[in-house]
Amino acid sequence: MSPGRLETLAIHVKPMDNEHPMNSIARYLQDELPRINAFLDAQAAGLDPVVRPAAQHVLGAGGKRLRPLLALVTARALGCTADPYPMACSLELLHSATLLHDDILDAAVMRRGRAAAHVEFGRTETILAGDALLALANKLVADYGIPRMNAVLSEAILRTVTGEIMEIASVRDTAMSQERYYEIITGKTAYLFQGACECGAILSGRGEAAERAAHDYGLNLGIAFQLVDDALDYVSPSEVMGKPSGGDLREGKMTLPLILHLRSLAPQARQELEARIAKDELDAGAARGVADAVAASGCAEATREAARVYAARAAQALDAFPGGQERDLMADILELVLSRNK
Amino acid sequence: MSPGRLETLAIHVKPMDNEHPMNSIARYLQDELPRINAFLDAQAAGLDPVVRPAAQHVLGAGGKRLRPLLALVTARALGCTADPYPMACSLELLHSATLLHDDILDAAVMRRGRAAAHVEFGRTETILAGDALLALANKLVADYGIPRMNAVLSEAILRTVTGEIMEIASVRDTAMSQERYYEIITGKTAYLFQGACECGAILSGRGEAAERAAHDYGLNLGIAFQLVDDALDYVSPSEVMGKPSGGDLREGKMTLPLILHLRSLAPQARQELEARIAKDELDAGAARGVADAVAASGCAEATREAARVYAARAAQALDAFPGGQERDLMADILELVLSRNK
Repeated sequence: MSPGRLETLAIHVKPMDNEHPMNSIARYLQDELPRINAFLDAQAAGLDPVVRPAAQHVLGAGGKRLRPLLALVTARALGCTADPYPMACSLELLHSATLLHDDILDAAVMRRGRAAAHVEFGRTETILAGDALLALANKLVADYGIPRMNAVLSEAILRTVTGEIMEIASVRDTAMSQERYYEIITGKTAYLFQGACECGAILSGRGEAAERAAHDYGLNLGIAFQLVDDALDYVSPSEVMGKPSGGDLREGKMTLPLILHLRSLAPQARQELEARIAKDELDAGAARGVADAVAASGCAEATREAARVYAARAAQALDAFPGGQERDLMADILELVLSRNK
Repeated sequence: MSPGRLETLAIHVKPMDNEHPMNSIARYLQDELPRINAFLDAQAAGLDPVVRPAAQHVLGAGGKRLRPLLALVTARALGCTADPYPMACSLELLHSATLLHDDILDAAVMRRGRAAAHVEFGRTETILAGDALLALANKLVADYGIPRMNAVLSEAILRTVTGEIMEIASVRDTAMSQERYYEIITGKTAYLFQGACECGAILSGRGEAAERAAHDYGLNLGIAFQLVDDALDYVSPSEVMGKPSGGDLREGKMTLPLILHLRSLAPQARQELEARIAKDELDAGAARGVADAVAASGCAEATREAARVYAARAAQALDAFPGGQERDLMADILELVLSRNK
């Protein structure tokens, strides 16, 4: 994929009715969140007492439940008659497992505004709680008796792990290409979104064309989601995000806003900044200054523009879905992902 | 289960023919090891370059391949006509994943006589390589299109993780009961053996009775295996095991030989030793002395006796298997597990 070309397309996604997309999603979530959370609580309660606290910590941290929501909505949009909750919630379990392991990889001390699990529960309990959640998710999905769902989820986890690894290997690599950046975010974020939607489609039993459409919707939505996330890291103050603003820059993560910003600088300024990033010489104040410059140069906004391209592709995939409340909601989710500012 | 009662049963398992069990297994392995290793090598080669070295390190460390062997032999004993290698090798991938994560939990620096993966490749690469192997194993099994195999393996991993957690939570707990010890070894070791055999049976398609027999064989064999392993830690010199002798004692692991030994001591001697274990006061020399006393008091041998009880149960489960080369081999494996001294 050539992001340079994509940015010039700049297709805009419109909400499908006049209601603000946030309202329709909020109404849906009002019904669904308690069910999703009750299911997750019951699963966590069934774990061994030694892993339970770390699992409950990460599951109870109040994530957006975006992955189970996507799985639910996709399944229903395609007329699913099976109970979708175990499948949908398995996506949150997988996501939570990656968060637990990430906490250790990053040596992160904050996660969603709370202390990271390994700080509170120890490294051992955190690694094993992650393994337990991975296994539990696989088991929930296996119990449907539809092996393709296990294959899709295993593949998604494998690719998620690979994406995380590529990201870590690319830290402070100021020569990193945009292609590599897209590979990383597709891996670490989009494949699990894709897995959520594809499993929803498989469970509905509507056949290959529907599964492919769900795959395309989820994958492109996931890429758009991460692009916006990476843009927000340069413009959103810490209080809103629950994590320090400009954090990616300080951690040496080469995300699109920074890649575009470096490319926009004069050769000497660029070399100087690259050297400071490579040598990890930016303290909090300096990082804040660079982050402001990235935002001021329009590179965060350009990253949001790129997100619109992928959201448009996701919207196109929706054409293959039968019309109805859930398809409208899937369009609204695209809109929300693009417009969110926290 | 009441280990006290079990020890009095002391049923002995005899090889099924006059050939030494090691010879029949060695001949089988001579054919199978290259195939198992070639399959594992190909899987490792297909991983992302960033996780590949850690994965190849653990897979190439030359384990006994006992789990894939068990899966293969069980499948064939039950007349399996499908290709058993992906299923069988997925068990080694799962086992290797737990070894990679264990390395980090234990902060172990040696594994099978080689440096632990996290020392050579870093903690991040090691955690993620473990996650990748877990996902790969699930995927290989999912590709058969038999969802019960995924359910069995997910359950086995969940129980393995739980067993590991219980073990860690019980370190230096000198009041630990035998019941708890059996729960731990069943969890951390036996469920994966059971999963190997049960998946072999499921793949053969011989029905529930065969699956139950395979389940019972694998579970009891696994318990016997770990009992012998724990006995060997008190009698086998370091050069043979590839890890320090008396290592469990120094790590504060409350295994059966130590539990039995503590129980055999006079109250004051027992209290003193328990205090030294609880406070981690045994240096290498003192640990060596205690380990020698455990062996001299017959507690390592009593642990081997307990293993014979479980091996006899496993042998009983074999009665439900059709006669033939593979069933004989499954009996030989029991004999080998009991007689091994390294």
